Formats: sequence, C-alpha cells, structure tokens
Amino acid sequence: MTTDTDEAARHRAKMEKRKAVQDAEVASKTIEKGLLIVNTGPGKGKSTAAFGLALRALGHGWRVGVVQFIKGAWDTGERRALEAFGDRVAWHTMGEGFTWETQDKARDIAAATRAFDKARELMADPTIGLVVLDELNIALRYDYLPLDEVVAALAGRREGLHVVVTGRNAKPELIAAADLVTEMGQVKHHFAAGVKAQRGIEF
Amino acid sequence: MTTDTDEAARHRAKMEKRKAVQDAEVASKTIEKGLLIVNTGPGKGKSTAAFGLALRALGHGWRVGVVQFIKGAWDTGERRALEAFGDRVAWHTMGEGFTWETQDKARDIAAATRAFDKARELMADPTIGLVVLDELNIALRYDYLPLDEVVAALAGRREGLHVVVTGRNAKPELIAAADLVTEMGQVKHHFAAGVKAQRGIEF
Repeated sequence: MTTDTDEAARHRAKMEKRKAVQDAEVASKTIEKGLLIVNTGPGKGKSTAAFGLALRALGHGWRVGVVQFIKGAWDTGERRALEAFGDRVAWHTMGEGFTWETQDKARDIAAATRAFDKARELMADPTIGLVVLDELNIALRYDYLPLDEVVAALAGRREGLHVVVTGRNAKPELIAAADLVTEMGQVKHHFAAGVKAQRGIEF
Repeated sequence: MTTDTDEAARHRAKMEKRKAVQDAEVASKTIEKGLLIVNTGPGKGKSTAAFGLALRALGHGWRVGVVQFIKGAWDTGERRALEAFGDRVAWHTMGEGFTWETQDKARDIAAATRAFDKARELMADPTIGLVVLDELNIALRYDYLPLDEVVAALAGRREGLHVVVTGRNAKPELIAAADLVTEMGQVKHHFAAGVKAQRGIEF
C-alpha cells in the first residue's frame, strides 16, 4: 500500500532532481546580447507577441521603436495603448495598406523604402532598446526591398539592441541571421466558424 | 518585349482580383462572440502574445484581468508596464513558482485551486472584457486542477468575454472547447547558442 506521504516524498525527490537539472542549465548560459527575433508562420500572435515584448521592454524603462511596413492608418488598440507611454514609444506607420488594397507596385516599393529608412534611423538611436519591424517579412516576400541589404542592416545592428521582425513567410536568409525564430502555427481559427474579425482581438 | 507599364497593369489586375476574394471572405464572417483562445506549443511568445492582446484590449478602453498560475513573485516587465493602466488591470500572481521550485505537490494544488477561484471571480466581473489565464495549461498538465470543471467554466463564460489560456501541452479537451488555438513552434532558440535569459526578452 502506498500512502499519501510516500507519494509526496516521491514527488519531492523527482522535483529536487528536476530543479538540479534546471539550475545547471541556467548556469550554462552566460552570454548577453541584443537579439534578432523573428515571429513568422501562418498562425495568429506574430505581431501581438512583438507588441507584448514592447510592453515588457517599457516595463524595464526602455524606449521602444515601431515601424509598420504594411498596415496603413488603422486605428489599432495596441497603438492607442502604447500612446500612454508618451515619447518612450516612437511609432511610425509607414505602410499604406495591404498590397491588394493599394494595387500599385511602384507605390508599395516607395512606401517600403521609406519605412526601412525609418527603421535604420530608429536602430541607430542609442536611446532605444527594442525596435519592432512589423510585417517587414511581407515587404521582403513581395521583393519591395533588397533582401541582402535588409539582412546586412539587421545583422549589423548595434550591440545590445533587440530587433523583432514579424510576418509570415520569413526568408531563409533572415532566419539564418536571427537568434530566435518562432513559427506560429494555426491549429484552429474562429474565422473558419464564420466568426468575424473583432475589435480587441484582431485590431 | 514587356514594358514597365505592362508589368504595372498586370500587378494591378492581379491585386484587383485578390482584393475581390479578400472582400468576399471578410463579408462571409458575420458572427461576433467572446473567444476562448489558447496559445500553446514549445516555442516562445505564448504569454507574450497574451499580454499583447491585453495591451490591445486596453487600447479599446476595456478592463483586463490576469491570473498567473505558475510564476511566482517575479518582478516582470509586463506587470510593471501594465501598472501604468491603474485599476483597469486586475493582476493576480497566484502561483508560487515552477513545480520544481516548490517541490511540494499539496502546496501546488492549493495554489492552483486558489488561482482558479480568482479566475472565476474575474470571469464573472461584467466590467472586464478580457481575462488572461497565464500558464493554466501547466496546472492542468500536472493534474493540479480537475480538467472537466475547468473546461466547463471556460466554455460557460459569459457572452462577449474573451479568455486567453497559455502554456505548453494544452489538453485536447481544452483545444476542443476553444475558438482559436495557436501552436508556437520553436525554429531557432538563442539558449542553444549559450545566450542567457535576458531582461526585456524573457522577463
């Protein structure tokens, strides 16, 4: 017969072992560096997680830069909420909407180029600790920007600066240059059940 | 010979078609409902995306509730940043750390039970539009809470309330009840290159 006390002791022993493994693992990581982070994949949460990181960075007292490459003048909740942090957030909406909204490739290229110039400016600003390049992957996918130049600029970012790039279909060259890449996979989506894009969830 | 004008016209025609498909798709979704959202998988961004949703909700003027089931008294950036929104955020850290930190199963169960009681309270509060149940999946995975009761409480949430559940290894019963499930997959992680958990990125 096993007693509750036996089980509690076994649980404790197992968890002591687990903690030792965990502590050793944590101790083995010693490098600190500004990360190039990529959130890609067909699922939700790519931009949302990037803005979650911005929130975390603000909580540590950093300044944050945001460039939106695609989305146009949408009045989004995240933008409005980040306005509460005043000039600690440098927010630049440089896109003019999805490419099927503008229907003009030359205009899309010009907008993407202006957006990446702004991104370079924010990355060079020593008061900024995190830069979010929202939907940059889309601009790269449609060849609106020269991939090699963009990857070189991101890889050559100043020491200590974290950069987050979002959007589906991240280019392999960008993934190769990145420190942390997450693929958001769609397991189940409410659009399939006829539920529409909703305030607070999609925008 | 194709000219620039030809190419621009082709691009335009293709994007006009794309826009028609997109518009029809948007028009086909008519339902509005409070969603049960699950962020799971081994990759990063599960909690971060949930806090990004909280930020978006705050931008729309909603109140937000947060219950942390596992993490203990860590002074995280996201918590500090959300304090800027005053009593519009009801934040409850109910966990006492990872299960290998406490090494006491009875204590873990008691903490998880208190945390879910708090979750029920927030879900019942009509002033709250979004509730984040951070790392609830971990408490369910270790059987610290009765799965059927938890799923019933989430499925029976009041109309219009959005709930986000995070943590790896989401239970199939929870996924079945959810409207939106995203699996965060790890493509590349800086820990593998010896980079340690860093302020602003991991906490």
